[in-house]
Amino acid sequence: MSDNTRLQRQIEFIVEIDKLKQVMRQTIITDKSRQENSAEHSWHTAFMAIILLEYAENRQIDVLRVVKMLLIHDLVEIDAGDTFCYDRHAREDQHERELQAATRIFNMLPKDQARQLQSLWEEFERGRTLNARFANALDRLQPLINNYYTHGKAWQKHEVKKHQVVDRNCMIEDGAPKLWRYALKLIEDAVMQGFLSE
Amino acid sequence: MSDNTRLQRQIEFIVEIDKLKQVMRQTIITDKSRQENSAEHSWHTAFMAIILLEYAENRQIDVLRVVKMLLIHDLVEIDAGDTFCYDRHAREDQHERELQAATRIFNMLPKDQARQLQSLWEEFERGRTLNARFANALDRLQPLINNYYTHGKAWQKHEVKKHQVVDRNCMIEDGAPKLWRYALKLIEDAVMQGFLSE
Repeated sequence: MSDNTRLQRQIEFIVEIDKLKQVMRQTIITDKSRQENSAEHSWHTAFMAIILLEYAENRQIDVLRVVKMLLIHDLVEIDAGDTFCYDRHAREDQHERELQAATRIFNMLPKDQARQLQSLWEEFERGRTLNARFANALDRLQPLINNYYTHGKAWQKHEVKKHQVVDRNCMIEDGAPKLWRYALKLIEDAVMQGFLSE
Repeated sequence: MSDNTRLQRQIEFIVEIDKLKQVMRQTIITDKSRQENSAEHSWHTAFMAIILLEYAENRQIDVLRVVKMLLIHDLVEIDAGDTFCYDRHAREDQHERELQAATRIFNMLPKDQARQLQSLWEEFERGRTLNARFANALDRLQPLINNYYTHGKAWQKHEVKKHQVVDRNCMIEDGAPKLWRYALKLIEDAVMQGFLSE
């Protein structure tokens, strides 16, 4: 591959990922004016990794790897769409759809970079390593914070109950135990204030 | 500061920066449906740092520092708004407005983190170090790419001419010479195709 072809492929990938700005999520932004998109969500979680690093379960974390995971973790939604986390039906074939999307999107890049991104995405998806557990914790915490600060607008719209929020997010504990204790307080307070049903 | 107060300040900062999703820029997203906001732009440029790292003027770059700079570089716009880069009048007091914004926003964080972010932002603004020059190059290249791939919609709206685009963006060369050669080709092609006036 000539140097120019390599750069051209990288630029085409950079143009392609612009589409993530069109993938809408169920989370509402804090002024309550509209839903958030997945590019904004990715920025917010990557930023959180820098600010909340000290709460990772283990300080031996590779923050660059976590930030990279969070920047890329939702790219597959360009093809597969955002799957609402409380929608069991849509989640059945989610993995298959996302795997196909990953193959197409990452392979727009030169091979070495395609492999690197595929590996980061798979590590995030499996959620087993220290870095992936912390990244996953932030991916769950961000919508929880936005839900709380928009008075549970998205929870109410989808009639989500407290036990669902706890079940869905308790894996925050694996990556960042102290942030899970904080999240539990938000959930309790949301119930007390009537933002979330018991 | 107790541990809980520290975490509460960090969370309030994380809620505050959600407002960057409401700051609109002149750049158009690639489906031409709407303007981009500064959170999306920050995500896009941070992602570009990972993909285009090999084109930095010097390989001794600290990619984590570059990514951090790009994630935070527009936060001041929460108070100061986005200043259109070809608007000379608005740019006169831009620095003063942004400095005040930085002080307010970064100081929502615990002192050690406020200092860290302030220092990253100042380094980016000064644009002198290797890392800042590369970050600045990507901050200019991203809107140029989006302008080209939306057939110059934003250029035409604001009657921007070729010499302005060259003057504004030629500093890409300082941080990433090969990307500037690529950008020049895009600019020439934009003129040839009638997306940009001579």
